[in-house]
Order: sequence, then C-alpha cells, then structure tokens
Amino acid sequence: MPKITPEEIHELIEAALPFAVDTGMTVEHIGAGTCRVRLPYKPVFARPGGTVAGPLLMGLADFAIYVALLSRIGRVEMAVTTNLTCNFLRRPKPADVIGEARLLKLGKRLAYGEVSLFTEGEEGQGPVAHVTATYSIPPEG
Amino acid sequence: MPKITPEEIHELIEAALPFAVDTGMTVEHIGAGTCRVRLPYKPVFARPGGTVAGPLLMGLADFAIYVALLSRIGRVEMAVTTNLTCNFLRRPKPADVIGEARLLKLGKRLAYGEVSLFTEGEEGQGPVAHVTATYSIPPEG
Amino acid sequence: MPKITPEEIHELIEAALPFAVDTGMTVEHIGAGTCRVRLPYKPVFARPGGTVAGPLLMGLADFAIYVALLSRIGRVEMAVTTNLTCNFLRRPKPADVIGEARLLKLGKRLAYGEVSLFTEGEEGQGPVAHVTATYSIPPEG
Amino acid sequence: MPKITPEEIHELIEAALPFAVDTGMTVEHIGAGTCRVRLPYKPVFARPGGTVAGPLLMGLADFAIYVALLSRIGRVEMAVTTNLTCNFLRRPKPADVIGEARLLKLGKRLAYGEVSLFTEGEEGQGPVAHVTATYSIPPEG
Repeated sequence: MPKITPEEIHELIEAALPFAVDTGMTVEHIGAGTCRVRLPYKPVFARPGGTVAGPLLMGLADFAIYVALLSRIGRVEMAVTTNLTCNFLRRPKPADVIGEARLLKLGKRLAYGEVSLFTEGEEGQGPVAHVTATYSIPPEG
Repeated sequence: MPKITPEEIHELIEAALPFAVDTGMTVEHIGAGTCRVRLPYKPVFARPGGTVAGPLLMGLADFAIYVALLSRIGRVEMAVTTNLTCNFLRRPKPADVIGEARLLKLGKRLAYGEVSLFTEGEEGQGPVAHVTATYSIPPEG
Repeated sequence: MPKITPEEIHELIEAALPFAVDTGMTVEHIGAGTCRVRLPYKPVFARPGGTVAGPLLMGLADFAIYVALLSRIGRVEMAVTTNLTCNFLRRPKPADVIGEARLLKLGKRLAYGEVSLFTEGEEGQGPVAHVTATYSIPPEG
Repeated sequence: MPKITPEEIHELIEAALPFAVDTGMTVEHIGAGTCRVRLPYKPVFARPGGTVAGPLLMGLADFAIYVALLSRIGRVEMAVTTNLTCNFLRRPKPADVIGEARLLKLGKRLAYGEVSLFTEGEEGQGPVAHVTATYSIPPEG
C-alpha cells in the first residue's frame, strides 16, 4: 500500500513546492513505489520549435520520482535530490506531458528511481525523455 | 575568439528562449569555449528551506553550456540537448547563482561540456551543483 | 523480429570484442530491442567484500545495451558508446550476473537504452545496478 | 596535505583491488583532493579499431576519483561508488591512459569528483573521456 495519497501530495505542494504550484503539476495515481504525474501544457512553456522546455521536463521528472519515493517512506519533505540524469529522446509536442515513475531502490540513506515522460496521446511513439534520479534520505530525528 | 557576443545571446534569448527570459538569466562573459552566466535571485524560485529550486539550476546549467557551445560554432539555434546530468552538491542560498561553463569536446555531430554553479559570494565553499551536458549538432543545410 | 542472433553476436565477440571474450560474457536471449546477457562468475572478478568489480558490471551493461541495439539495426560493429551512466544499487554477491536490457530510443544518429543487472537467484531483491547508455550510429557508407 | 601516499595506495591495491592489480594501474601523484593515475597500455585491452576498451577507461576513472577521495579522508576502504557517469569523447589510441582527477565535494555521507582521461602524449587534443562519480562514505564505527 502506498504511504501517501495524491491529496496529501497536493497539500505538500501547496505548502512547500512553489515550482510545482506555478507549473500546475498534478499526481494522477500513486502505487507502491510507482506513480503517474502530469504537467498540463501552457504556452509559456514553449521553446523554439513549439515544444516543452527542458527544465520543465526535468522538474516534472524530479517531482515524479520524489512522489514514488514518498509512496514508500511517507511524507519526508527533506529528502533531497543528489543526482538527476535526463536523456532527451524526442522533441515533445506542445501538449500535456505524462510521467510514469518507479522506484528501483530504497535504502536507508539513498533511494533511486526512474521515470519515462510521454506526450499525452503519443505514448506509442516512445518516451520524449527518460530520467533517473538519486535522493538522499535524512537520518531519522 | 568567441563566435558570438553576449549581446547576440541576449537577442537570441528574446527571440527564442522564453524560459530564460522569464527567469532573467544573463550572460556576463563569453570566451572561446567558455562563459559565465547569472541567474538573478527572485523569491518565486524558492523551495523548502529557502533555496533555489532544482529545475532552475538545471535550466541555468543547460543555458550556460549551450552558450559555451555557441561561442565555438556561432548562432546555431537548433543544437539540442540530448543528455543533462546534474549533481546537487550543496543547498544553494537564496541568492544569485553564477555558472562557469566550459566546452570539453566539439565534434561534428556532438558537443559536450560542464558547468559549475556557485552561490554568489560563496564561491570559496565550492559549487552548489556540477552539471555535464551533451548537445546534438544538426547537419549543415 | 530481431535482426541478429545470439550465434552472430558470439561470432562478433570472437572477432572483435576481446574484453567480452576474456570475461566470458554470453547472450542468452535476443528479442526486438531487448536481450538477456550473462557474466559467469570467476574468483578473479572479486573486490573487497567478495563482490563483483564495478568495471565488470559496467562492461556487461555496455555489452547488453549494444546487443539490444544490434537486435534492431543488425551487425553494425562501429556503433560507439558516447555515454554510460551506472548506478550501483546493491553489493553483488560473488555469483553470475544477469543483465536484462531494452532499447528506449532508436534514432538515425543516436540510440539509447537501459539495463538492470541482477545477481542470479536473487532477482527478487532488486537490481544490483541500473545502467543507461547512449550510442552514436555512424552514417551509412 | 594529502592523507594518503602513492605507496599506501599501492599497498591497498595489492591487498584489496585485484582489478587494479590485473590491469596494472598506478598512482603518479597525489595532492589534496587531486591525483594523477596511469593505465599502462597492454594489447589485451584493445577493441575494434585498436583502441582501449571502455570498461578499462571506466575502471581507471573510478580508481582515480577514489584515490582523490582517499587523499582527503585517508584509508577508508569501504567507501563505495554509487554513481559513475562516463562520457566517451574521442577514440583513445592504443597507448597509456593518464587520468587527472579532483574531488568537487566532500560531505559527511557523500563525496563527488571528476576525472579527465587523456591518451599520453596527446593531452593537447583534449580528453578521450570525462567521468564523474559519487561515493557513499560509511558512518564511522
């Protein structure tokens, strides 16, 4: 069972993640170590060629793996990203971006996961980006 | 001699990089394969703990290495990032972030560079993040 | 249908990949954009703690994604690795290592894939390493 | 002042790093958070095109950053690599490979560094590979 709900994530966003609030990221599903997130398209995201800017894709990816981590450990706000590796695979269309994340390792001090990002409606063409990230988990107080 | 000036980069930003415009990124110096860029601090960038959000650091890093690339090949807007790897090393203070980038390889099809990001005034404490990125250069028309 | 067979891969290894020959890597299955490879354990691989050395894991991962690529494009020996990112997740036991690879993107110039490495018999404990790699595909002669 | 000498590293190699022994890696210089290492060329390293195999470059890079870390914390054998990211930039000649490493961060739990690898005698042509790596430092007993 996931240890956090989409509602709790959305409360966390409002309280503590202004970047996610500003960009309108949402969580659509949370499993045990997995989640699906969405970045609703806004024209301000565009860059040359009418696509979604790289920093937004990376921000969405970071958010997705963070949520997948919280689904296992509960609300531990201060887990921090130590590495994020993004491979841009295809030019995203100017449309919503969906992220499907899963945690690959949960240790005492480090967690690691991956996320594939898709343009909504074009999942069959493969991911627009694939991202891996590592998080450092603070020692329990 | 660099093949592009900060003024030309700023024109390029206005025309084609709304993310850089919105965040206020500027180029302070361009060398041959190197550059120094700045992200002026704004309260909206903050995340829990009063620091600069990760996507902004990654966006600044991508911008910096892109500029270092253009300093060698001139204005080739459509060079695209294929990989960006960010290591977050220290919590950035809520202050301007400086990026010092250099290109490590310029091939016919791929370019690769690195950038160290510093909190302004705290350069002596080491980088807040270290980023490497690869760009794909389109074939000449 | 895969465009190359395990037998053809083994011929290629004999002719051109002495590192794979020396270490004894084998291909157990090839699908369309996927494969399973094996590194049979030898005591010489060990490092402190009785585990498999990191370079061997990375060599196996590179080999696995290369085979997954060849399964789609056929025997193109000169495709070269441009980036390999390895996340070490768990200390491997002194035992055979299995790699399950899949290609995530095949473009004209670049291909990208991932592989999860497992200690044989302990797949349920999760991967010992997760690796992504990018290959540059030479222009057709 | 470095907290470990090349002689102590070579003792450590003999006792605990058979991969480094087998490949003949040596340490030429140790500074405070920096080092220079060497992989003497052997024909067995070759792969198609007469170059040095990727796993050997990655093994040398891992070794170099590990030594740069030990130069700051002394002999802590069990520091383990958690991430290694290798960018292959140029085909290495069949010749000795030199690595110039430096530590970019030393925290309580994580350390991070980079290394540039050069073909000896061709340093002016730029690195053949650039590698970054993260190490997890065990809690003090």
